[in-house]
Amino acid sequence: MTLPREILQRIKEIESDTTSGSLAITRKAAITVLHFVVRMQHSRPSDVRSNLIRISERLIHAQPAMGALVNLAGIMRTVSEESEEKKLSQIVKAVVKEYVRQLGESSEAISLSASRLIKNNRTVITHSFSSVVLQTLLRAHNQGRRFRVICTESRPTREGLTLAKKLGKHGIPTTVVADAAVFSHLSNAASVLVGADAVTRNALVNKVGTYPIALAAKVKRIPFFVLCCSLKFVPDRLIPSTFALQNPEEILGPRRFRHVTARNIYFDSTPLAYITRIINEKGAFTPGKFTREAKLSMRPNRFRPLP
Amino acid sequence: MTLPREILQRIKEIESDTTSGSLAITRKAAITVLHFVVRMQHSRPSDVRSNLIRISERLIHAQPAMGALVNLAGIMRTVSEESEEKKLSQIVKAVVKEYVRQLGESSEAISLSASRLIKNNRTVITHSFSSVVLQTLLRAHNQGRRFRVICTESRPTREGLTLAKKLGKHGIPTTVVADAAVFSHLSNAASVLVGADAVTRNALVNKVGTYPIALAAKVKRIPFFVLCCSLKFVPDRLIPSTFALQNPEEILGPRRFRHVTARNIYFDSTPLAYITRIINEKGAFTPGKFTREAKLSMRPNRFRPLP
Repeated sequence: MTLPREILQRIKEIESDTTSGSLAITRKAAITVLHFVVRMQHSRPSDVRSNLIRISERLIHAQPAMGALVNLAGIMRTVSEESEEKKLSQIVKAVVKEYVRQLGESSEAISLSASRLIKNNRTVITHSFSSVVLQTLLRAHNQGRRFRVICTESRPTREGLTLAKKLGKHGIPTTVVADAAVFSHLSNAASVLVGADAVTRNALVNKVGTYPIALAAKVKRIPFFVLCCSLKFVPDRLIPSTFALQNPEEILGPRRFRHVTARNIYFDSTPLAYITRIINEKGAFTPGKFTREAKLSMRPNRFRPLP
Repeated sequence: MTLPREILQRIKEIESDTTSGSLAITRKAAITVLHFVVRMQHSRPSDVRSNLIRISERLIHAQPAMGALVNLAGIMRTVSEESEEKKLSQIVKAVVKEYVRQLGESSEAISLSASRLIKNNRTVITHSFSSVVLQTLLRAHNQGRRFRVICTESRPTREGLTLAKKLGKHGIPTTVVADAAVFSHLSNAASVLVGADAVTRNALVNKVGTYPIALAAKVKRIPFFVLCCSLKFVPDRLIPSTFALQNPEEILGPRRFRHVTARNIYFDSTPLAYITRIINEKGAFTPGKFTREAKLSMRPNRFRPLP
């Protein structure tokens, strides 16, 4: 039995979503799985199992750099392989719901710790759009701190502008700079705050342009903070060695020029050595401590309902 | 006597030229001065002198980060102050023409040396648009070398695209990348080649985004070459401590958003320590050697016709 067309369509949308953050995309994936489980409730249990495994593979393939999604799919796969067929739908439903609940809870906890890092009358630099960074900055603002945010434009999809507008709407004074110009502002900033698509034992995977900012921040001794829940930690081998090529028209425009191509890549890898602290759901840790903790917390059992 | 309206208009155009390279802009300035001299040939010599001094000041103010222009204006000023009034027009004319001639000759010589740095089957990265870099790459291509060029988009004015199209037209395979993505390509490049707006004893002034590329190239041990004639060398004090703010709409678009501003700056400063070699009209030098040589070659007398 092949996957229902509607589910394939949803996975395709996840694959071509070039603007949402990784948590939003992971939620979309969870909804897709829940949808599938409801739809398949009268199907043969063996079909449900094989299709759940197929969905998990396709989800990883759709956004292989997004740790939270890769882990959701990985846990789904393990649970699908190991659970009793008759109870599988119920178990997967519970696991996916619990995973999404933990994701949300982690974001809350992270924004609570991280908001304490935002001091009065200082400037914070961020890059790209991260929902947890947005949550953190709004929380600090609501707690009465007055600060300024510098957002990078974040070409090619310019999601930094989206973040700036949201911050501005809440009354936070925000300055947008070209991606190439953010380095000129580092020396006047108190810190850099970014989200994460994934963290491995060696690197932070995040929107392209994160690496040079972290490098320059290290050289200029500006603290570089990454907001990242444990559920985004993945083994190195799960991160592709080269990231997917996106639509070249986003760089070149609709016209073609002889001998001219574009390489449009959305992610880069930052060595963990450039990162001051990773803030997860339990607090602020050195990258080494973060990865040790995260490895322990990734057992699929954590998400399974009690028998 | 105030400056003729037409001259003021030409200086204004130089000030608002956001896309030409610094050599093209310096040539525009030279034409403006020659124009003025012709126009004023029947005016009182003291008016010519005072107006030449005024023009030199306005030219520096128009593009204070462009060394070649700043030096042209400085030499004009010295010559105007020191020369006999009656001969001043003729002397300034000769000096300006000689300066422009030397600029062109230097570009030729630089592109000749620098083209030897471009090796077969390698990738060269460049940033922004530099006429000398273009000349160098075309020369290497015409000499039969086959190589690939990676151009940054170079937001906000995207002059990297202009360079890519020119290279492509001549059959050089060219790849355009977002400014934030160029760092991901460094490890596969043989070298980085950029032009210069100015070089001081401490820093290279060039299109914003040059600094992080030079820093990352240093860390990744990729040679970073700057093509810069001696006429672009200026004392540190002549470079403004903060660069001019350009039109924020280039970043934000035409709409306004509450509490959101843009800082649109075109230049940054790169410590000379990140630069492997500066190629001037005499060859490839360490930054220290380049500045020592350049200081010696900047005497106004060099440009004066023999009495």
